[in-house]
Amino acid sequence: MRTRIKDLFRKSVELESQEIMIKGWVRTNRAQAQFGFLNINDGSYFDNLQVVYDLNLKNFEEISKFRVGMSVCVKGIVILTPNMKQPLELHATHVEMLGDCPESFPIQPKRHTREFLREVAHLRPRTNLFNAVFRIRSVAAMAIHSYFQEHGYLYVHTPLITCADCEGSDQMFKISTLNFNQLPTVDGKVDFSKDLFGKQAFITGSGQLHGETFAMAFSDIYTFGPTFRTENSNTKTHANEFWMIEPEMAFCDLEELMNIEEEMLKFVVEYVLKTCPLEIEFCDQFVAKGLKQKLTDLIHSKFVRISHHDVVDLLKKANVKWEFLPSYEDDIAKEHEKYITEYFNSPVFITDWPKDIKAYYMKLNADGKTVAAVDLVVPQAGELMGGSQREENLEKLLDRMKELHIDASEMQWYLDTRRYGGCEHSGFGMGFERLIMYLTGIENIRDVIPFPRTPKNCEF
Amino acid sequence: MRTRIKDLFRKSVELESQEIMIKGWVRTNRAQAQFGFLNINDGSYFDNLQVVYDLNLKNFEEISKFRVGMSVCVKGIVILTPNMKQPLELHATHVEMLGDCPESFPIQPKRHTREFLREVAHLRPRTNLFNAVFRIRSVAAMAIHSYFQEHGYLYVHTPLITCADCEGSDQMFKISTLNFNQLPTVDGKVDFSKDLFGKQAFITGSGQLHGETFAMAFSDIYTFGPTFRTENSNTKTHANEFWMIEPEMAFCDLEELMNIEEEMLKFVVEYVLKTCPLEIEFCDQFVAKGLKQKLTDLIHSKFVRISHHDVVDLLKKANVKWEFLPSYEDDIAKEHEKYITEYFNSPVFITDWPKDIKAYYMKLNADGKTVAAVDLVVPQAGELMGGSQREENLEKLLDRMKELHIDASEMQWYLDTRRYGGCEHSGFGMGFERLIMYLTGIENIRDVIPFPRTPKNCEF
Repeated sequence: MRTRIKDLFRKSVELESQEIMIKGWVRTNRAQAQFGFLNINDGSYFDNLQVVYDLNLKNFEEISKFRVGMSVCVKGIVILTPNMKQPLELHATHVEMLGDCPESFPIQPKRHTREFLREVAHLRPRTNLFNAVFRIRSVAAMAIHSYFQEHGYLYVHTPLITCADCEGSDQMFKISTLNFNQLPTVDGKVDFSKDLFGKQAFITGSGQLHGETFAMAFSDIYTFGPTFRTENSNTKTHANEFWMIEPEMAFCDLEELMNIEEEMLKFVVEYVLKTCPLEIEFCDQFVAKGLKQKLTDLIHSKFVRISHHDVVDLLKKANVKWEFLPSYEDDIAKEHEKYITEYFNSPVFITDWPKDIKAYYMKLNADGKTVAAVDLVVPQAGELMGGSQREENLEKLLDRMKELHIDASEMQWYLDTRRYGGCEHSGFGMGFERLIMYLTGIENIRDVIPFPRTPKNCEF
Repeated sequence: MRTRIKDLFRKSVELESQEIMIKGWVRTNRAQAQFGFLNINDGSYFDNLQVVYDLNLKNFEEISKFRVGMSVCVKGIVILTPNMKQPLELHATHVEMLGDCPESFPIQPKRHTREFLREVAHLRPRTNLFNAVFRIRSVAAMAIHSYFQEHGYLYVHTPLITCADCEGSDQMFKISTLNFNQLPTVDGKVDFSKDLFGKQAFITGSGQLHGETFAMAFSDIYTFGPTFRTENSNTKTHANEFWMIEPEMAFCDLEELMNIEEEMLKFVVEYVLKTCPLEIEFCDQFVAKGLKQKLTDLIHSKFVRISHHDVVDLLKKANVKWEFLPSYEDDIAKEHEKYITEYFNSPVFITDWPKDIKAYYMKLNADGKTVAAVDLVVPQAGELMGGSQREENLEKLLDRMKELHIDASEMQWYLDTRRYGGCEHSGFGMGFERLIMYLTGIENIRDVIPFPRTPKNCEF
């Protein structure tokens, strides 16, 4: 039975002086005349295992020529080295190549640019950086599931395929099983009755509406799944495919919503700090200096809560020449978010937004001008979550839909949440990649997604 | 602060004689002249909370007319009733309607057919059956994440959008941002260079190939995400959108693969039995008699391992008139699976399948005729997982691709897993809905998916 390198580091005292077997990939090989060092990584642990081999091995010559990237099987004695950089090493009794790797292997032990590594996205997990990033991504996903499940939420798989055009089909991918080169038509238009679902179908960009129907049965639910946007924009923060978490809570108002967002985020950050200390250390050192402190500070901070109106007041009073003038009617620009989070030196909940720049389903406040919406902005990363109390009053909701020319006829199922035992309820959305960028300090979304999809870019 | 009904049942001793507040939905209301009983469910717990109200409440008359489906807020004193059917009840001090519900509410306290409930999929979570099914679904998802994360696996989000036509585009949905009524053409064919990705794009049916590239860095990885098939078939077991788990392990052969599958399934079943006792009890009583025993037996059984060849021998010897004649070259039919699992009265791993009916990436056995594939079939539910050792030899893999006319030119990134430090590795796929059907006894896949998508059916 092979030992995972992670288990070796964890149980090193117990394994001292014993012979174990590991399998992994060569990260470096430094051979001298009498002995050599192989650094092996099996992906179970961030750090490499140092293997010492010497002339006593009959294939010493062969081993000393082992190349970076090769997969190997090593047997050896565990030696604790408390005074060295690494806490232990393996004195090899047997070293064997499993899979060869030519010198042309693109991932060599040197600094590669992130741009280059995107071109070999299938190989970049074999670098320290992407080993750290994708481990943090995996652990953060588990942290999110743990938080919600421990708090009794139901994980619901909302559908991705939809025929309802609730969100405006311009922002959704169309899907079809028809032959695009021979589309059936009727009256000069495509005849979707011949398509698999008998009508035109899309891939959705949100599970919120479906989530609300489940919140009316289970009280507390969350979604966690992939989401698609057709935006044709090539920025550091946009991708056409990404993952999103959308919790939805019955009997929950805006204040309670913020409590949940704050508690959840702190839980996730603490979980990742605890589970991925080496990965965070690496990102702190090589990606974003001060990362660990920033994350630790967040856990112990009390998030600020301030209305959009008061934020605009602050911005207007600030001695700053804005590119975008702050306005009570408008959105908060990136430069404003930056100023506000630096002003408070803390994550900030901005509440009660002008209704005209927010979605129809958000609850209208008593002033008739603002809605009970809240965005969470965090230092350095900007908006991390967006949520609102939902308009539970059917008449008011229908009025808003009419104002915004949203066709209610296809959405009767959604409106039923307000017809049958409706109640005060709230929810939010969190872009998962945005969270991972915050947790790692990585600035480009392409570097936190295994195989990113962006305009003109759908390789692999 | 309101109390969740789940917490009330858990901490009943501690809460005895105290006044608490709950919010939830009316499941039934039985009013008599002097007092009445409201059964309330808030979705946090399978069982309802019985609320006793009487003439001391000034709105007694109003409460006695409360209708099924209404959302309510109830304050009351917790009374333990160890000799009654339910362990506790709430003696109301205050009962208030939050959201009305007309008598036309489709979910009434009577037996509805599953067919009818599919037509109100947005309301069916408010029934006992779907409360149980979707709670089990949520808990089973958590069980899967727990198993893999506790064992050091990396959760990887493989992309759903793909431009590589590895699987045969006939089985994949095409996606596009183009206007279908005015498709740009060049030489009489659709000009996909104008589409968002600059070429034709699809929604994939598997993350395996991408998963393999990550296994070559992290050793042990799994995917868990939605999957799409265009199959135009209306059966009880087919849906066009479903969720799948695809683990992939480096340094892992067929035997070890079976060990993992067996251990994982037992873990998940045990986790669900422990976490959802009331839900399983309900399914045992109203969906599939004997369910609980079946699941308990599975945990304690040793799964049988037998080759496809030996299975066919058994089938040929059986005193059964087969609809499909068993053959060494062919697939195992449903009737065969049923016979085999009943014969062994246990889950059965069927190994070493004829290569011509299995995928190109499966490892060719020494006999040159069979591949190191394994299907797990279980009593009553049939095939639950399908996996294989992968062909790690580049030349053999290329030969198989050539034989099957698979274009290798677009798959160089995948083939790199065999070029750069390749190794023995294995993986499997498990349809999540198939698992939920097994765990609940539900026979129709439409009843284990929140909003199922099947041919001609994409409502909500």
